[in-house]
Amino acid sequence: MVIQGKQIYDLAARLFPICRSITGSGVRQTLEILKQHISQMKITEVPSGTKVFDWEVPREWNISEGYIENSSGERVIDFKENNLHIMGYSVPVDAYVQLEELKKHIYTEPAQPTVIPYLTSYYKENFGFCMSENQKNNLQEDTYHMVIKSELKQGSLTYGELVIPGESKEEIFFSTYICHPSMANNECSGPALAVYLAEWISGLTSRRYTYRFVFVPETIGSIAYLSRHWKEMKNNVIAGFNLSCVGDNDHYSMVESRYGDTLSDRALKNVLRYHCEEFMVYPFLKRGSDERQYNAPGIDLPVVSFCRTKYGEYPQYHTSADNMDYISPEGFQGSYEVMTKVIRALECNRKYKVKVLCEPQLGKRGLYPTVSRKGQYDKVYGITTFLAYVDGKNDMIAISDRIGYPVDMLIDIAEKLMENDLISG
Amino acid sequence: MVIQGKQIYDLAARLFPICRSITGSGVRQTLEILKQHISQMKITEVPSGTKVFDWEVPREWNISEGYIENSSGERVIDFKENNLHIMGYSVPVDAYVQLEELKKHIYTEPAQPTVIPYLTSYYKENFGFCMSENQKNNLQEDTYHMVIKSELKQGSLTYGELVIPGESKEEIFFSTYICHPSMANNECSGPALAVYLAEWISGLTSRRYTYRFVFVPETIGSIAYLSRHWKEMKNNVIAGFNLSCVGDNDHYSMVESRYGDTLSDRALKNVLRYHCEEFMVYPFLKRGSDERQYNAPGIDLPVVSFCRTKYGEYPQYHTSADNMDYISPEGFQGSYEVMTKVIRALECNRKYKVKVLCEPQLGKRGLYPTVSRKGQYDKVYGITTFLAYVDGKNDMIAISDRIGYPVDMLIDIAEKLMENDLISG
Amino acid sequence: MVIQGKQIYDLAARLFPICRSITGSGVRQTLEILKQHISQMKITEVPSGTKVFDWEVPREWNISEGYIENSSGERVIDFKENNLHIMGYSVPVDAYVQLEELKKHIYTEPAQPTVIPYLTSYYKENFGFCMSENQKNNLQEDTYHMVIKSELKQGSLTYGELVIPGESKEEIFFSTYICHPSMANNECSGPALAVYLAEWISGLTSRRYTYRFVFVPETIGSIAYLSRHWKEMKNNVIAGFNLSCVGDNDHYSMVESRYGDTLSDRALKNVLRYHCEEFMVYPFLKRGSDERQYNAPGIDLPVVSFCRTKYGEYPQYHTSADNMDYISPEGFQGSYEVMTKVIRALECNRKYKVKVLCEPQLGKRGLYPTVSRKGQYDKVYGITTFLAYVDGKNDMIAISDRIGYPVDMLIDIAEKLMENDLISG
Repeated sequence: MVIQGKQIYDLAARLFPICRSITGSGVRQTLEILKQHISQMKITEVPSGTKVFDWEVPREWNISEGYIENSSGERVIDFKENNLHIMGYSVPVDAYVQLEELKKHIYTEPAQPTVIPYLTSYYKENFGFCMSENQKNNLQEDTYHMVIKSELKQGSLTYGELVIPGESKEEIFFSTYICHPSMANNECSGPALAVYLAEWISGLTSRRYTYRFVFVPETIGSIAYLSRHWKEMKNNVIAGFNLSCVGDNDHYSMVESRYGDTLSDRALKNVLRYHCEEFMVYPFLKRGSDERQYNAPGIDLPVVSFCRTKYGEYPQYHTSADNMDYISPEGFQGSYEVMTKVIRALECNRKYKVKVLCEPQLGKRGLYPTVSRKGQYDKVYGITTFLAYVDGKNDMIAISDRIGYPVDMLIDIAEKLMENDLISG
Repeated sequence: MVIQGKQIYDLAARLFPICRSITGSGVRQTLEILKQHISQMKITEVPSGTKVFDWEVPREWNISEGYIENSSGERVIDFKENNLHIMGYSVPVDAYVQLEELKKHIYTEPAQPTVIPYLTSYYKENFGFCMSENQKNNLQEDTYHMVIKSELKQGSLTYGELVIPGESKEEIFFSTYICHPSMANNECSGPALAVYLAEWISGLTSRRYTYRFVFVPETIGSIAYLSRHWKEMKNNVIAGFNLSCVGDNDHYSMVESRYGDTLSDRALKNVLRYHCEEFMVYPFLKRGSDERQYNAPGIDLPVVSFCRTKYGEYPQYHTSADNMDYISPEGFQGSYEVMTKVIRALECNRKYKVKVLCEPQLGKRGLYPTVSRKGQYDKVYGITTFLAYVDGKNDMIAISDRIGYPVDMLIDIAEKLMENDLISG
Repeated sequence: MVIQGKQIYDLAARLFPICRSITGSGVRQTLEILKQHISQMKITEVPSGTKVFDWEVPREWNISEGYIENSSGERVIDFKENNLHIMGYSVPVDAYVQLEELKKHIYTEPAQPTVIPYLTSYYKENFGFCMSENQKNNLQEDTYHMVIKSELKQGSLTYGELVIPGESKEEIFFSTYICHPSMANNECSGPALAVYLAEWISGLTSRRYTYRFVFVPETIGSIAYLSRHWKEMKNNVIAGFNLSCVGDNDHYSMVESRYGDTLSDRALKNVLRYHCEEFMVYPFLKRGSDERQYNAPGIDLPVVSFCRTKYGEYPQYHTSADNMDYISPEGFQGSYEVMTKVIRALECNRKYKVKVLCEPQLGKRGLYPTVSRKGQYDKVYGITTFLAYVDGKNDMIAISDRIGYPVDMLIDIAEKLMENDLISG
């Protein structure tokens, strides 16, 4: 049953072909597609040159063509075939060069000779052509025509945000990024999952918390967003998740927050422990995505990253091999289930308190076997042990961690006990 | 040398044949025997119907006869042979039935086909016959006469308590239960040991703490007792021990308190560590006896359970195989020694403070070798290391845990240092 | 490159032949040699009989001769050949005795039959001759002349101290001892290393902290010193190191402070972890040198001991085999490097704080690659991770422990970031 997984995969497939960068029309096209699912999404443009903390929003980059042509007029590589062929933010070029000179502008990944690597040069004017090591080695002495039709202009950086209100002003925060060209897991997967989580949250009959989703270009986008919203977020965000590389079907991963001890860390670790056979918990030392900004000193938001195989830890990462075959409906389904469980755990993460002294008599409420015999205590382990720890000090995640029952099961137990007026909270 | 062990065993043997339940004459007979040893014991009756927290004291149950007779007038089972044959709190019955109907009222333990299991139905009217699986399988088609001559009446629940005063109002608390019919380790052993501990404590020339012993029916008895005494106990009890299954001669066990960090936990773990070759420390998750009530949220007494093999962890548990052969004088001797060591550790568990700055000169007091040579520091390791940690922050158990010396040896050291006016506290 | 190691070794060699004890001319000669290197050293005499906490400064001991002569006039042993032959603080003796009587005054180390053991009897009048077990076994029946020409007189105990002022009154403290006769590692090595550390510190262009070095007789000397200085030291000392057995070239060792959690513990463990392939961290339970006094309750100075192979843990310890062959320039060089690294770590152990919100843009400052591609984040791991934790809560040692970079490298990073005005502190 991968109903949602299939839908998420299909959305990722729509996003895949678009050539994105940290600014430009690709970002806007992407946001328009996402907005078809979550119409309340608000799209914001931040003009080039705007100061955002220690940074400045760069000029906007767009590209229409890019290729290398040999003297026979054959295109050795062409941006139209794969947008990874052109280094992100390449300045325009139109020049005839010999092979030796051409090679100075070619980038490959020698350790993976069949793939095109993904490169960018956002903050220094440069241009480059990316291809496989094999392709480069096959180039003959010749005169080559290097062409990049791109434009760097005063424009803007574009991001999307969505706030789904809840009973409380306290917020659960999700961030994902929309600045990578045609790579599937990193990063068509994050926005696609985020959209379906937002839909699911919108459909909840009640919401304790407010939910904030942001779809930003990595680094400069999260910095720009924070520069405008960090104060309100510091007041309100109680847990946050950066979604990245969530579409493959290998093990699960998370990157802890700066000190590894926030509610986000606790909630995600708890769910991984009970529901995922294989998972990795990386310390913040292994960070690399927008959790860097959210956890920066002074920002101090409780944000962890959630991945299947973590960015940087799979060979296809940042190459043309990170394509739609690398991700799958099953992979998305798993990510979707983990994150909905995390949200459910947070929504119900109250500190209940038992209302009677000593153990309540569960038997008279039909919650305990009437005949007492060896072994029967095991059957009511969950309910009696839950009752032992609802002393007002432990939230549901803490009890789950302690007693070895997933939060899902504790929610059922808590509901039964609420019905019987045995706990409050 | 199992002098006390033999005496405790003999007392357990006197208790063994009595048919006990959570109310009734068996409880009273048991308490009368205990009172022969500890005459100050006060016996209390709590009337049926009394509200005790979330519970109500049930009607009093007594039984005079119980059997199944076949058409030849042979008794298939008879309460007189083994009181486990009748489910506890069985209502009266006198009926002729065919085998098929009879079997609906027969309880066995199929996994242990030779033993009679122990069952009760305290809070729902029911009746039942318990026998071995083998015996059940040998029953032929026949007309059987089911007879139980029992009575459920407005009566009372009975418990015993004993308070041995000390210099301080602060209390050390012991609880054990007296509601099980003829099973030896669970639970003739607990009351028998408790009596001999009470005698030993009464004989101490000085007592820093007050000692409270309670002999209660499990669950309803401890709840009834707490409903009357929990406020004073919350103020005074600094450590408490539930005694159960203390007569076998296998490894030692304890069940931690709710958070595993009380003085009781520390004291018992310390003694187990230094004096018992094999022991198990179970978390509170593995609880199952009256520590459940004493540790309940809001009650919050610092109570752990002490056992040899823990209840529920040996195959004889709650069957007819838990008989006088399963327990032994050696088993009791070990338990007695552990618990007297625990009491001694608590009695002396002061925070001493050294009275001089830098190391005192032990040599001039005859506490240190006068010739200094390689290796001699080892001989005075205990005294010098004790001195290093009597900084007013550590109690004796903490120092023992840290420096690797049993509390017994630290008591000797502390006495020498007190005599030399080197420590206070 | 063992330039300093060779110099330290040579100084130890000068100290080696002198017959030292806890008082007397050997201590003074030793201090005079040290003063040739550190002329600001102040030498203090504490008169015999002075009360120092629980102790009293003993009479001063000096010795000119000591031997055993057989009836042929051959000296069996002679103090002139090895000053370990006479038990420290032996009273004078001049007596002719038979072998049986002689043996009562002979001390050997039977487990190491070829070495002369080191013994003392400071606080009880006694005399003794130390020799190898083999030598003792070769003694024939004969009349022997036992001679010790020693003197115990009202005199004084001598110690040296050196204070090197820094910007702050806060102090880093070093202690070593000068009371052992001809043994090389224990203890010509400690004073020799201390002198070269003091020289190095004096040569620093800036010093954040004040440095205090003391050269004292063990136990009575440190107690005497503390009795006069402990109050100011309690106010000022932030870290302290007892130097002992620092000349052999085996693994490194440290003895923790009383609770193992002071700045000294943290600094030394950090340096050992990053710079020493093999090292042992002993708990305070394994103490045995002057760290005992500095860590005593009420004194509470944050002092650890630093050794190569710890005192008591090598077979040559406290025997004639602890000679100049057991120590080496390489051994000293290693100790010198560890301790200078520790001092450097302490000097720079500030809590820096990043001055911008979110990650600073390192690229525009030349601190980050301009082309972004797979794997390049690793190259800037140190600088970005350092920035993530300079939140004002962590000192440099804490960051080093956390992120896996030695403090040396963090100092370089911090300097670059200070130059770029990105951190303060």
